[in-house]
Amino acid sequence: MFPLPLHGALDPASRRAGTTPGSFAARPDVGGPRAFSSPDSPGMPPPSDKTAWDFLPPGWKRDPTTGFAIAPEGFRPVTQLEFARLGIVTPQMRRVAEREGHLTPEQVRDEVAAGRMIVPANRAHLSMRLDPMAIGRAARTKVNANLGASPVRASVDEEVEKMRWAVRWGADTVMDLSTGGDLDRCREAIVRAATVPVGTVPIYQMIVGRSVEELDERVILETVRRQAEQGVDYFTIHAGVRLAHLPLVRDRLIGIVSRGGSLLARWMIAHGRDNPMYELFDALCEILREHDVSFSLGDGLRPGGLADATDAAQLAELEVLGELTERAWRHGCQVMVEGPGHVPFDHVEYNMKLQRRVCHGAPFYVLGPLVTDMFPGYDHIASAIGATAAAYHGASMLCYVTPKEHLGLPRRDDVKQGCVAYRIAAHAADVALGIPGSRDRDDELTRARAALHWQRQFELAFDGELARALHDEDLDVDTDFCAMCGHDWCSVRISKQIAQFASGKDPAFQRGRPAPSPGLSEAQIALLEARGEASPERLHRLAARTRRAVGGEVGQKAVCHSDLVDEAQARRLQHERLAAAVDDASTP
Amino acid sequence: MFPLPLHGALDPASRRAGTTPGSFAARPDVGGPRAFSSPDSPGMPPPSDKTAWDFLPPGWKRDPTTGFAIAPEGFRPVTQLEFARLGIVTPQMRRVAEREGHLTPEQVRDEVAAGRMIVPANRAHLSMRLDPMAIGRAARTKVNANLGASPVRASVDEEVEKMRWAVRWGADTVMDLSTGGDLDRCREAIVRAATVPVGTVPIYQMIVGRSVEELDERVILETVRRQAEQGVDYFTIHAGVRLAHLPLVRDRLIGIVSRGGSLLARWMIAHGRDNPMYELFDALCEILREHDVSFSLGDGLRPGGLADATDAAQLAELEVLGELTERAWRHGCQVMVEGPGHVPFDHVEYNMKLQRRVCHGAPFYVLGPLVTDMFPGYDHIASAIGATAAAYHGASMLCYVTPKEHLGLPRRDDVKQGCVAYRIAAHAADVALGIPGSRDRDDELTRARAALHWQRQFELAFDGELARALHDEDLDVDTDFCAMCGHDWCSVRISKQIAQFASGKDPAFQRGRPAPSPGLSEAQIALLEARGEASPERLHRLAARTRRAVGGEVGQKAVCHSDLVDEAQARRLQHERLAAAVDDASTP
Repeated sequence: MFPLPLHGALDPASRRAGTTPGSFAARPDVGGPRAFSSPDSPGMPPPSDKTAWDFLPPGWKRDPTTGFAIAPEGFRPVTQLEFARLGIVTPQMRRVAEREGHLTPEQVRDEVAAGRMIVPANRAHLSMRLDPMAIGRAARTKVNANLGASPVRASVDEEVEKMRWAVRWGADTVMDLSTGGDLDRCREAIVRAATVPVGTVPIYQMIVGRSVEELDERVILETVRRQAEQGVDYFTIHAGVRLAHLPLVRDRLIGIVSRGGSLLARWMIAHGRDNPMYELFDALCEILREHDVSFSLGDGLRPGGLADATDAAQLAELEVLGELTERAWRHGCQVMVEGPGHVPFDHVEYNMKLQRRVCHGAPFYVLGPLVTDMFPGYDHIASAIGATAAAYHGASMLCYVTPKEHLGLPRRDDVKQGCVAYRIAAHAADVALGIPGSRDRDDELTRARAALHWQRQFELAFDGELARALHDEDLDVDTDFCAMCGHDWCSVRISKQIAQFASGKDPAFQRGRPAPSPGLSEAQIALLEARGEASPERLHRLAARTRRAVGGEVGQKAVCHSDLVDEAQARRLQHERLAAAVDDASTP
Repeated sequence: MFPLPLHGALDPASRRAGTTPGSFAARPDVGGPRAFSSPDSPGMPPPSDKTAWDFLPPGWKRDPTTGFAIAPEGFRPVTQLEFARLGIVTPQMRRVAEREGHLTPEQVRDEVAAGRMIVPANRAHLSMRLDPMAIGRAARTKVNANLGASPVRASVDEEVEKMRWAVRWGADTVMDLSTGGDLDRCREAIVRAATVPVGTVPIYQMIVGRSVEELDERVILETVRRQAEQGVDYFTIHAGVRLAHLPLVRDRLIGIVSRGGSLLARWMIAHGRDNPMYELFDALCEILREHDVSFSLGDGLRPGGLADATDAAQLAELEVLGELTERAWRHGCQVMVEGPGHVPFDHVEYNMKLQRRVCHGAPFYVLGPLVTDMFPGYDHIASAIGATAAAYHGASMLCYVTPKEHLGLPRRDDVKQGCVAYRIAAHAADVALGIPGSRDRDDELTRARAALHWQRQFELAFDGELARALHDEDLDVDTDFCAMCGHDWCSVRISKQIAQFASGKDPAFQRGRPAPSPGLSEAQIALLEARGEASPERLHRLAARTRRAVGGEVGQKAVCHSDLVDEAQARRLQHERLAAAVDDASTP
């Protein structure tokens, strides 16, 4: 009657199966339609009719036959964008296609050439351990985790360890935002150890040991050059905030919340001159191009609260970011653009679609955004909501927010919580956009659920350790139900009993014999303890009791599948033994 | 150039201020336009052109002058819908208007009369402690928390305590889903203690002590009557799943995941007859009307995984739910409709808009939905994302999902985590929909942030205890920076220094003298310990050291505002003392 509208370029069948590669128009000379985009709500700015092809460097031409570019004689390509423009597929593009799965190397090249995708890969970092990846709408949505020593706490080893931890929990890139300790040494150690691209905000180092007013051209260019030589893959450069914008900030509730933005505002007011990053932009482009450092055009005037979202200051800066995108493309640089941090849910699509237009489809790298200001301590959740909508409507990379946002420096567990929340956001958006294959693991897990195959569920879960710990908190035994409903009330179990239904019938999940799984591991016990509710004594007592009640060996998980034991026995186990064991274990 | 499109009936000024009441068309005879709605993406089903006014009971007429209804002679109104139809504002509607703030009692009446709002208030519960509230698009988005003893663990006191805990953390209604213990006694205790509406799923009690196949007409009607007499405010009745739908479930990955739905499917297959809830629907309406129990029309065929979302089975049932909505309205009953639990992010709007059409704007009560299946242990986050989109696009109440979903029975902390995640979702949607006043507290908190007024931030935070604990984990001292950036790097502090900016200039936040705030409380220490990262020893050592370093008294928080002490002193405190103290405290 009113069929589910399908958007993007994928047909219904492939959306359902989630495996067929989408056929999308990525011809080098075509601006649209783009694959994997959300439908425009009424009133949204339409896409730009330009791409990076419209901003070739002076002296470059297009080959009318191939559509690729012809560079002036003697030109030697350095950046991925330059190679792509010349029609060359680099090893990095090949690797990106391999990692994305649904893209061919030629599609990667064409997206890079159009400016809709970047492969942040400093040539120096490539000679180390960098495993190339891509940021762009045709690729899967990426997540960035911020790290960095502060003046209050600085340790190189700790930051390297935090970087590995962030990658373990799903960060696709990391930013070293150190402001304390030996900045050069910390950055070097992170770049050397990182298989993921590393970003920095060079202005942080520029004002170490000097006040921001003392910043000058020499310091700016030298710092940027040194970090580029070290192998940093992308730089946040706040060149978009200009002197003329500052009066627009006056009526905001919370002024400027970007560190780089506030420092540069102070410089501009002190000197009565325009932003030095803007003034030096062409010189910066040359340095970045030389090492193929990608630009991440910083939004120094991003809103710091819902009340300041989508205001004149933010939009004025965005116009400049559009101009800078074009200029960087003319220098052969790869560019992404940074986006706002606090935005009401209904502003998200507009912000994304406006950036798409103004910056001609350059990848959008968004912080959060938080969709409410009222939940400090839970900002990873408040912002993962905004981040999902952002990724669905246009963002290509999401900068994580941890539970410590607005309160302090994230610790190890905060980094994990932030990464997981943002993996959820990125993944949910990829599924919604119909990126081929993105739903496969969800479906596998649904199949394992239908089969009540717990071990397989834990294997497929993003954080299987936690999932098993939470499950075993109630029942340290594999059952064909869980403690949520108990045996009699398990809809999945009942559904399985209805012979007409296919639930859980996948042969992969037919188990001939019960497979005892291990008991609670040290890590799981630690996780449960950290939940703060159950005392370790209680947990251990509980685990031991239930195991004994159902006849398991120490160190092994007991087996109690009621499709293996008979129905009456399963009920008895639940009603008599488990209930009694739980009851017993819970008495203080 | 492309201005932010505004939808709903609010003008830009009121959206920004967030305080002006929206003027919306809530005339009794008008189906649309509705206030506080999201714009329709291309291809969405348009709203229904009918409302509850089109489904008056036989013998009722409309008064052409007032627009209200005229009932047959001798009729005595019982339900809120009946009062509303007759143009009567009840004390409950008055109370709802008081609690919503942006609605007049007459607007509440008109929304109830149109079927777009319900006031779930069993007359028996009204004679106890119930504080009436409303569920509907013109009201703020509501959150429900599920409670209930299971066969594995059953204690009446524990469930009553859990109910209070859920309400403490923001639940607007609770459902008692008990399946174990003394069901009648537990329900009675919860209803008696609850100031919020209580919902149940009567079929759970119907099969205690008997197999589902033994269910008959007498048991169904008796159970429903008993629970109605006890004061339950709304019932989930799975009358929409019909015998003819069952073949549609065959190809699903995970069959039927609704408990009620799976039980009734088993009954239908065993008896070869249609759903008894459907067959008895008119009789059920009469019982519910008599006590003004609201219907929550259950979606027994809701999808249990992304792969099954928006499929033929789900949509076929929705059509029946539309028919049942009309029938219940004809009996004078208040109705809401339940919605799906697992839905890809891009399906959410379609699901909401289709329900709006088929059920003529009856309030939609949605479980989650989860937008990915892959993150057990984090399903409160995965589903809060879907819930925000659902509330923005049409849902009026969100049923929470806890971190224990799919794994086990939620414990105390899971209930809290679920409630908070869903308060974020509901609140973010209300702000996005422009519900007047909804953004006020966010803005206050932003002002406190701009003023670096920590105490005020913690007061305004939804969970101020946690916010303070996380802040104090790093710095047990009030500063005009936090440990995230440290003194030199605090953009808000820098922004404040730019005299031209208004940041933090609100007179309410001008502090004449430092106001020492209390040190870490027992509750905060417990919270930090539960984070699992910092040992209690380390925390206590840290707190004591920093306090001593900056000269605070034991039991009081030290004061260190660098707008009170001079700049150089603040820097010294940071670089020399704080850093040393933290360093010292962290050595094992």
